[in-house]
Formats: sequence, C-alpha cells, structure tokens
Amino acid sequence: MIQRPRGTRDFGPDEMEKRRRLEATMRHEAALFGFREISTPIFEHTELFTLRSGPNVVEEIYAFQDKGGREISLRPELTAPAMRFFVNEMSNSARPLKMFYFGQCFRYERPQSGRFREFFQFGAELIGNPGPESDAEVIALAASIMRRIGLKQYTIRIGHIGVLRSMLAEAGVGSEAAPLILQKLDKKEYDEARQRMQEAGMDDAKIESVVDITNTVGPVEVLDKVSGEAREHLMGVFNVLQAYGFDNIQVDLGVVRGLDYYTGMVFEMDAPVLGAEKQICGGGSYSLTELFGGEKTFSTGFGIGFDRTLLALEKEGLEAPPHGVDVYVLPVGEPARAEAHRIAAELRQAGLSTDIDLMGRSLSKSMKHANTINARRTVIVGEKEMSQGAVALRDMITGEQTMVKRDELVATLKK
Amino acid sequence: MIQRPRGTRDFGPDEMEKRRRLEATMRHEAALFGFREISTPIFEHTELFTLRSGPNVVEEIYAFQDKGGREISLRPELTAPAMRFFVNEMSNSARPLKMFYFGQCFRYERPQSGRFREFFQFGAELIGNPGPESDAEVIALAASIMRRIGLKQYTIRIGHIGVLRSMLAEAGVGSEAAPLILQKLDKKEYDEARQRMQEAGMDDAKIESVVDITNTVGPVEVLDKVSGEAREHLMGVFNVLQAYGFDNIQVDLGVVRGLDYYTGMVFEMDAPVLGAEKQICGGGSYSLTELFGGEKTFSTGFGIGFDRTLLALEKEGLEAPPHGVDVYVLPVGEPARAEAHRIAAELRQAGLSTDIDLMGRSLSKSMKHANTINARRTVIVGEKEMSQGAVALRDMITGEQTMVKRDELVATLKK
Repeated sequence: MIQRPRGTRDFGPDEMEKRRRLEATMRHEAALFGFREISTPIFEHTELFTLRSGPNVVEEIYAFQDKGGREISLRPELTAPAMRFFVNEMSNSARPLKMFYFGQCFRYERPQSGRFREFFQFGAELIGNPGPESDAEVIALAASIMRRIGLKQYTIRIGHIGVLRSMLAEAGVGSEAAPLILQKLDKKEYDEARQRMQEAGMDDAKIESVVDITNTVGPVEVLDKVSGEAREHLMGVFNVLQAYGFDNIQVDLGVVRGLDYYTGMVFEMDAPVLGAEKQICGGGSYSLTELFGGEKTFSTGFGIGFDRTLLALEKEGLEAPPHGVDVYVLPVGEPARAEAHRIAAELRQAGLSTDIDLMGRSLSKSMKHANTINARRTVIVGEKEMSQGAVALRDMITGEQTMVKRDELVATLKK
Repeated sequence: MIQRPRGTRDFGPDEMEKRRRLEATMRHEAALFGFREISTPIFEHTELFTLRSGPNVVEEIYAFQDKGGREISLRPELTAPAMRFFVNEMSNSARPLKMFYFGQCFRYERPQSGRFREFFQFGAELIGNPGPESDAEVIALAASIMRRIGLKQYTIRIGHIGVLRSMLAEAGVGSEAAPLILQKLDKKEYDEARQRMQEAGMDDAKIESVVDITNTVGPVEVLDKVSGEAREHLMGVFNVLQAYGFDNIQVDLGVVRGLDYYTGMVFEMDAPVLGAEKQICGGGSYSLTELFGGEKTFSTGFGIGFDRTLLALEKEGLEAPPHGVDVYVLPVGEPARAEAHRIAAELRQAGLSTDIDLMGRSLSKSMKHANTINARRTVIVGEKEMSQGAVALRDMITGEQTMVKRDELVATLKK
C-alpha cells in the first residue's frame, strides 16, 4: 500500500463536514465585520518567507527548486503572501482594506501530537491604519469568531511590543542585542534572558523590572504600571473592546511574539482545554509591505490555528449532528428501476438529498443500506404501487409506512 | 517587488466570491446525490502518480525530494489520492461509496491562456459497482452540476473504451501496440493512427472501420453500429439518464481517454463557448485500487475543470451580484465613537454585515467611503442624536434619512 506522506492527513466525510461547518462559520463572521476573502498560491518564491522571517526559516519549511531552477517554497503562513498580493495589486484600494483567507500551510518539522506538516490556517488583515480602533476591530473579529463557533473557554491576552522595546532601549541595549533578549522573554526562558541582559550591560534592578513587566498579566488596570504611548494605545484598544462584552480579555505585557516586523499591539488567544499547546490564535500590528518592495503600510492581523481550534471545540464536547440523506429510493423488481431513477431525479432537482439503490439489492438488504447511510425516509417503488400511480413512503425513524400518490411525492417530502 | 510564481494566481475579493459561490453550488449538488466530501494532502509520494500515469508523468508535475530524501509531488489530479485514501482506510465501507472533493492541483508546463500551473478541480468517485446504473448516476451528477450552476450550453459525449479495444483485438493488434493506437485516435491524429494500425498488421478495410467508429457521434440510435457488451452497457446508461431530462447527451464512440486504467464507459463534457479548449469535464469507469495495493474495485468518477467551467459561465454572461455590506456605522465627533462601536458590535452579533469608520474621517469623507464599499445603509451616530437616545439611519440607495430610536435599531435594520 502507498501511504500518505508523513505528517499529512486525509479527511473522511464526517471529519470534512465538521471542518467545512467550522470554516463556514469563521468565514461568515469575517464577512459580518466587513472583511472579504482573498486567496494566494500554495507555493511562493522562497525569498518571500526569508524576507519576513530571516534566512534560517528555510530549515523549517518545504523549500525546493522547481524545474526552471527557481527557489520556491510551500507557504508556511499566509500573512506574507497576503501582503505580497497587496503590494503587487491592491495598494491603491480604498483604506482600510479588510481581507481574510483560509487554507493549507506547511512546515517541515518532526510531526507530533496536534502538529502536522500540512495544517490549516484562518487569518485576517486590516491594512492601512495604525490606530487603536483598528487594532480593536481585529481583536474583536478574532474573539467574535471564537464566540460564534461556540468555544466556551478561551482567553485573550493583549500586550504591546513597545513596552519592552523602550525599556531595553532606555537601559542602553542596542538594536542588535534586543531581538534575542525579546525572543528569550517571549519563550519565558528567563535565565537566558537575564544572562543576555547582563551581557548587554543592564544592572540587576533594570533586569528585574523587565522580567517583572513580562509577568504583568491582569485587567486593564495593570496598565498603571507602565506609561507613555503604549499605555495610551492599549487603553484605546480596551475601550473599544468593551463594546463587545467579552469578559475574558486581559493585559499581558509578556506577549512579545518572536518576529521583528511587529510594530505595536500584539495579542494571543488560548484555549485552556488544550493543555500545554493551548495557543489558538496570535496576531498584532505590523509592517511588512516595505520589505516586499511597497510603501510602508501599517496593518493589523491575526492567524487562527484551524486544527487546534477544532480540537479545542471537540475537547469541550462539540457534537456534530449525524449525517444522513433525506430520502433513499428503493426499486423492487427490474421494471421499477427506471421509475425509481425518475423519482430520484425529481427529488434531487427539488433540493432533497437523495440516494438510490444502484446495486440491485433485495428489499431487505436495501433497507439495511438505507439505515447504514442514515436515510430519514425511504421511497419504495414496486410494480403494484406503480400500477396504482403511487409509491410507498416509509419514515425510517418511526417505521410508519404510507402510500403516497406519485404526483404528490415531492410536495409530501418537502413538507 | 516580489512576484507570485509563474503560472499561479492570486484571487481578490470579487473573484473569490464568484469562486466560492460556484464551489458551494457544486458541493451542494453532490450532496443532493448522496456524495460526501473528502480531502487529501496537497502533496503525495511521487510513486502514486507514476503508478497511475507511467514514469513519464514526472516530467509534467512538481516532483521534488523533501529534506528526508523522500520523493514527493504536488498532486496533478485528485483521483489517485482519493483511491489511495480509499485503499488505506475506507475499503471496508458500505458500497457503493460516494465521495467528492475540491481543491488545487499542479502541473509543471508552460503557462498559456486558461492553463495554469496551479489549477482547481472538482471531482467525484462512486466506488464499488461496475453497472450501467452507477455510470449513469455519475454522469447525471456531472450534468446536474452544470445545470444547477446555470451553464446554458454544454454537451455530454459518452463512449465505451471496450468498442475500440475489442475491434483492435479482433483485428489481431496485440496489447503492446493497442495503447499507442488508442492514444492517437483519442487525439484525432488519424494519419499516425492509420500508420500504426498498418504496422500492427491491420488491413485497410479494418483500419477504416476503426476510424469510422471514432467518428460515430449522435443520438443513442447510433449504437446500432456496434454490438456486444459495450452496446448493452451504454443502452443501460442512456436509459437511466433519460430520467434526468438532459437533451444534450450524445453517443461519441471516439471518446477514448488516454489512460490504461479505464475499464468501460468514458465520457466528456464540453462548453462550446470556450472554443478550442472547450472540455470542462472528463470521466469514466476505471480500476486503480489494485495498483495501489488494494483489491481490484470498480469505480466511476469524473473531474470538472473548475477554472474553465467558471470561464465558460463568464463567457455566457454570468453576472455576480455586486458586493456590499448591510450597514456602515459613522460616528460624528470623538464622544460618539465608543457608542458607534457598541452599535457595530450589536449589529454584527445580530447577523448584519457591518463596517465602521476606523480612520476618524469627516462625515462627507465617510459617506464617500460608505459608497465605495457599497453600504446599503449608514447609521450616523452624533452627539445630538445620542442625547435624544436615537441615531440617524440613511438609505444609501434612496438617500432617505430618518431618526430611529437607539433600542429599536437592530429590529428596524433586520426588517
């Protein structure tokens, strides 16, 4: 047998129904917020991703040469492609430009529980405005998606990259040393962060005040600890988010996010039911366009881990409604088969999901198959019934069986 | 600027709306026929595609080595992945198994008008039954999809691979020479086909009768030209299809389809509006499972070229309804902004697509933006109105403006 590639998945019908339903709900909520869908290719020039994330990212992605010698990569994320599309073709659009997307992404890493080499991301970007209201709009969309899909437990943690950056700058840490310190703080690797801050010449008091800030989590009042632009900005964000009535939003000044291109507000969402790997969404305000050859443009966006979000819903007990078809058409005897197909054709045309015996099974075996595929009703087409211009209609839940006039069948079933 | 890779496309919001609408209609029709969706990875082990199509296929696809030295390929089509999934995990499912899928496929070839390196396919497979009723069910689905999406002009041509195969066998052509002859006939390259038939030892009369058969196109009556199993089978297929009332179905014994694994009925659909590159769907009955390590299983399936089908609809004049949002919320003055966000939050929660000024624009500029994004109504939130517990509601089509009580706004807009 030929196996599917390691770290990838096949999705069967039950799984696909759940996934499509979740995807549709996310898409619908984004549309309610005035965001519109875009789509970009599965692969891009590798340069797009190294510009965003640095040359080392090539180690972690599906990078290869095509037959023309071009360096291409399966996309590891969707923000860079979306911003490339914006720079190439949409930079003259009315601002703010609100876009969302959904699709596969790929990373080359050891597959482990809940982490796949092919995974799915839902994301949104609001392009063209750096204000707190734009940031709040984006966070509100992410949170409204979680509310609409029915996730019961999740938290939203909002920080500002400027708080730590300015503390480090004021303590004399240069722009070369700062990113690595921020990365260590982002991962809560405090020993290493402390060591690097010492090496950068910070004294113990300043180091501990930085560490203290990264542990600052709580309601909006904890912003009293900080001052300046970042504080004002986050106050503005929280003011707008109050309108949405979410009671699970916190300030978390330890949200750093690893990458250089974030410019201000950053946020993450967790689903505690997932345990250690609980983050289901991450985002913030950033500027990437100038890296891709466009004018500097402020944006705010997020990416939702679709697979993890679905897993969280399932761990919370989400039950998918059982699949079934409206009608199973069951011819009895050879002469009834053509009529059975005419009936199936009519029912489908009328919008009823309809299956029909194609195997020439006996009545009892067909009934069994109708149960297997969870048919709600069967239409039994026999010679006797045909001679009376009728068919037998059986309710597969109650077992009740009635005769229905052939020309009233669609209307009866549509009731 | 970083360009997208050659032969790929970005889709903007208007395009994506058309595509998602078409995809949803196809998916819905498949569900009406009792087919259920599956999904497989974007890449597979290269072997899967060489087993199906021969080693030369590697020249035409995105084949590469991953970092672990595995030969993988971006999928060039979706039947082989679907059948691999079936062999691996679904071979014990109740028969017939009816599945459909939609997604990107990839081929490495010179991009040209209407042919892309990344393209989209919608397909379906009915697994486990070789009878004419199964074949008819699959053709009926493909044709019903075209009817439901509103394609006005299309033709369905149905043939049987057995007709030509048995004529060649009876004329003494061996199993080595036959496939190449069939390929030439498939492409209507008659001179080369004649030459190869001569080389295979056929006399002129037999050669011309083969050529004659490949030009046999017409209503079901043309089947009188042939005899045997293939004729009986196609008669059975046409009998069922009559139930669906399609008046654009023909017998076309020249439909050969290039690949060896087809076992009987083959069909193609054309949209004449597309000119030379008019084929929008191809399919037939086949057996692939034994190639992939499973038991031999008869299946019937088809693939619809999604991009070409959309192009045909557009050439026929399909107009997408204009995009818009239900409401644009427009705060006038700083004190009104928080209230404006509360209103947007409420409207979105109530299921109305709502945008809101995030840029702090003036009233007149905001009105202009509301027109740009095609808002059907604007809600103007000003201090004066707020003090009266009201907002101004403006119909952007008629220009009519009324005062609405704040607590009646959602109900008024939902009317």
